[in-house]
Amino acid sequence: MTVDELAEIVSGRVVGDAGTRIERISDLDCAREGEVAYIDNEKLFDAATESRASCLIVRDGAEAKFTDRTVIAVANPKLAFALAGAALHPAVRREPTIHPTAVVAETADVALTAYVGPNVCIGEYTHVGAYTRLEAGVVLGSNVTVGDDCVLHPNVVFYDGVSVGNRVILHAGVCLGADGFGYVRHDLGYQKFPQIGTVVIEDDVEIGAHTCVDRAALGRTRIGRGTKLDNMVHVGHNCDIGERVVIAAQTGISGSVVIEDDAVIGGQVGFGDHTRVMKGAVIGSKAGILPGKIVRPGVWWGIPVQPLDEYKRMNAHMNRLPQMRDDIKRLEKELAELKKRSTDYAE
Amino acid sequence: MTVDELAEIVSGRVVGDAGTRIERISDLDCAREGEVAYIDNEKLFDAATESRASCLIVRDGAEAKFTDRTVIAVANPKLAFALAGAALHPAVRREPTIHPTAVVAETADVALTAYVGPNVCIGEYTHVGAYTRLEAGVVLGSNVTVGDDCVLHPNVVFYDGVSVGNRVILHAGVCLGADGFGYVRHDLGYQKFPQIGTVVIEDDVEIGAHTCVDRAALGRTRIGRGTKLDNMVHVGHNCDIGERVVIAAQTGISGSVVIEDDAVIGGQVGFGDHTRVMKGAVIGSKAGILPGKIVRPGVWWGIPVQPLDEYKRMNAHMNRLPQMRDDIKRLEKELAELKKRSTDYAE
Amino acid sequence: MTVDELAEIVSGRVVGDAGTRIERISDLDCAREGEVAYIDNEKLFDAATESRASCLIVRDGAEAKFTDRTVIAVANPKLAFALAGAALHPAVRREPTIHPTAVVAETADVALTAYVGPNVCIGEYTHVGAYTRLEAGVVLGSNVTVGDDCVLHPNVVFYDGVSVGNRVILHAGVCLGADGFGYVRHDLGYQKFPQIGTVVIEDDVEIGAHTCVDRAALGRTRIGRGTKLDNMVHVGHNCDIGERVVIAAQTGISGSVVIEDDAVIGGQVGFGDHTRVMKGAVIGSKAGILPGKIVRPGVWWGIPVQPLDEYKRMNAHMNRLPQMRDDIKRLEKELAELKKRSTDYAE
Repeated sequence: MTVDELAEIVSGRVVGDAGTRIERISDLDCAREGEVAYIDNEKLFDAATESRASCLIVRDGAEAKFTDRTVIAVANPKLAFALAGAALHPAVRREPTIHPTAVVAETADVALTAYVGPNVCIGEYTHVGAYTRLEAGVVLGSNVTVGDDCVLHPNVVFYDGVSVGNRVILHAGVCLGADGFGYVRHDLGYQKFPQIGTVVIEDDVEIGAHTCVDRAALGRTRIGRGTKLDNMVHVGHNCDIGERVVIAAQTGISGSVVIEDDAVIGGQVGFGDHTRVMKGAVIGSKAGILPGKIVRPGVWWGIPVQPLDEYKRMNAHMNRLPQMRDDIKRLEKELAELKKRSTDYAE
Repeated sequence: MTVDELAEIVSGRVVGDAGTRIERISDLDCAREGEVAYIDNEKLFDAATESRASCLIVRDGAEAKFTDRTVIAVANPKLAFALAGAALHPAVRREPTIHPTAVVAETADVALTAYVGPNVCIGEYTHVGAYTRLEAGVVLGSNVTVGDDCVLHPNVVFYDGVSVGNRVILHAGVCLGADGFGYVRHDLGYQKFPQIGTVVIEDDVEIGAHTCVDRAALGRTRIGRGTKLDNMVHVGHNCDIGERVVIAAQTGISGSVVIEDDAVIGGQVGFGDHTRVMKGAVIGSKAGILPGKIVRPGVWWGIPVQPLDEYKRMNAHMNRLPQMRDDIKRLEKELAELKKRSTDYAE
Repeated sequence: MTVDELAEIVSGRVVGDAGTRIERISDLDCAREGEVAYIDNEKLFDAATESRASCLIVRDGAEAKFTDRTVIAVANPKLAFALAGAALHPAVRREPTIHPTAVVAETADVALTAYVGPNVCIGEYTHVGAYTRLEAGVVLGSNVTVGDDCVLHPNVVFYDGVSVGNRVILHAGVCLGADGFGYVRHDLGYQKFPQIGTVVIEDDVEIGAHTCVDRAALGRTRIGRGTKLDNMVHVGHNCDIGERVVIAAQTGISGSVVIEDDAVIGGQVGFGDHTRVMKGAVIGSKAGILPGKIVRPGVWWGIPVQPLDEYKRMNAHMNRLPQMRDDIKRLEKELAELKKRSTDYAE
């Protein structure tokens, strides 16, 4: 690909040799000939000068600093670099095929352009869309729907009735539709509460390795369009997660939690059941949210969760504890002296 | 199924048309004709009146409120609803078979009524009980025992020598019997401590997706009858977990922890090694228990764990910190004034 | 094996009958004839006296306490016991074979002495070293390298290009090389940041069940020689974890974290991105480390992490809060009285 072609993909302006060939993306330090890197930080200008990259993606206006090199000037260098990466390193494409070791139910409906890898199992009445890739060991139950252009990495498991949209990426071991965790206590132990709902994953969702999304007890567990989940996230039954939500690794979401569009959630966060996170809320890593809590827009932190400002103030107070204790001791001493003096005087 | 038949299953009394046909369970809001819903909360009486369910399960005594409908009156509506769900939505039954792609050792002993799905592997001298279902991709090592009426969902893995009782449900990706985490430090690094014990899972246990139960170093790791574990729980080597214990998602249990019968443990809790949780203890989500700690009956909370009352009291104290600081400042000022006055006066 | 032979393996001195036959290791309480146990704690001397073990491994100098038994005296009994365990209970050896259900790319290079189990998939240009065991359901992508004498337990997944050294043990479900969690926000949602780097695992590493190590965005994610990871650990993209590091279960490590050699990390710890943990640091379970933090040598604890001493001091201060509050109240009262008295007097 030439710099010119790349510039068109990332909507940038070329300054320098538009015909330079680019083969890979790289970072500033490691880049070699044929590679493109990006800078979105003035502190890296010196490093950029020394970089051996054949092309740099820089912020509009910064191109003047790089008079002796080929650059592409854009509004958002990191975004442009990501787009360049997608263009230069497209996902592996597999030849459409159903591997002879795959076990596909007769009633299943698999697109002719789909790839069905070794040892994949596809259940009754299950649909697999166009250009979708099912890597080795994927297991789809019955009545499942997988949209077009999806990638299911090895050993992904769908229980019966689960449905996912288009362009969904599920990393290895993702489990969709296992029973939610619900029991009714009785005299002799626990009776399983029915888990007969389903899971719906909308378009453009990406889910990290080993993340589990449980089916609803009744109704459905939903993950909205464009949402991204990291590795080993737990999503309980009946959760409703909106669009463009980001959730980092190992976060746990109890049953019936609602997370509205565009929320940003850190790693190892824990949600009590029936929590609601409002649009625009940002929750820091390791936070804990009590059951039923409504988390309003803003930045939240701590266990239990509180606005970041309050959390910081509280922390500052705690750090002053030793000082407070000293103050109290001093006051006691001074007061005792004063008392003594006043008594002496009175006498 | 008629309302009459359902009433017998849930040990309830019918008021209304005992012959109404019921096909599914549902919740109050979504229920339609042919569906049964339940109410165990007076606040829902209005919603119940508007529900289109063909039958409602209500608490004994509440039937008078629903004179124009068919109801089943029971002592515990939620429990009755769960039983109704189990009756109306029985688990998938598979035809007894060994799928041609399964790899079964010659010395394995698989019940004739068992279902062995695609790509299942069964090791030497392993026993699979009557009516047990091994879904696609399950791997059982050698000398494993699986009881009757179990369901092992896709990609469950048993290492050698593990044994599970009857009516055990293991969700996708559960891993039983991996080596515990034990090493001895020496001059050059770590020597693996032997992990030659086993795992024993008793009857009626259900384990959530991707939960891992490690084998004992020596002896056994045990999970008692009727205990329920949620997704992604970690159970370390040599743990002894009693009967009817409930543990929510992502909780981590270090080695040699004892959890007695009927304990209730929240999600993302962490247990230090050699902890003991006594019968009747309830531990809130995200709590942390220091190694060797004994957790007595009662409700516990926090990091490190403390009785909920104390935790709340401590939190209240912390919330008063700003006030305390102001108090101290005021005292200082007043004392200074008083001192000054007393000095002035003395002069 | 005789006691004599065992003593040689563990570099110990025999006192008693060197010809006694030993077949298994066991713990003091359960040991029977033909078994060896160890004691490294004086408190266990009484239990040891009653143990039915045929041989005891004891600390140099302690052999005098066991005049009527066969003992092996060593410098480090636990280490000697671990070595004895390794000798008496060697890992399962599989006959070299490629199971007929395995799917091996033509360009793959599998050592003649390797074991390739049922349903294993090996991608193009992938190398599997001598005596390495790939258990059922393992999936290796293309351009993967697995060294000699490795054990990959069932359902381990390697994405393309990942490489592991010699004597590496990966427990069931380990996932190496899934895409890191990186996106660039734009007007309409998130653009995936390229994840085209790789994962490198060095010699003698052991990784627990279901642990995920993500590939680097650019460059590589590394786990150094002799490092041990427990179950369900998350290692984000571009992390660099040194040699002989120990990390307990469910710890989460964000992107670009550096952990230097010989660090010891507890369970459920959370690392913000770009953290650096220095050689000699020990981090307690459930700790939280803010992004960019440098953790110096010493013992660390809490959320956010602080030196254990400070953490304890802070905790002591918090426990004194009720007392402090009482003190303030008393001071207020005394001051009010004094004021009143001084006013009275002045009048």
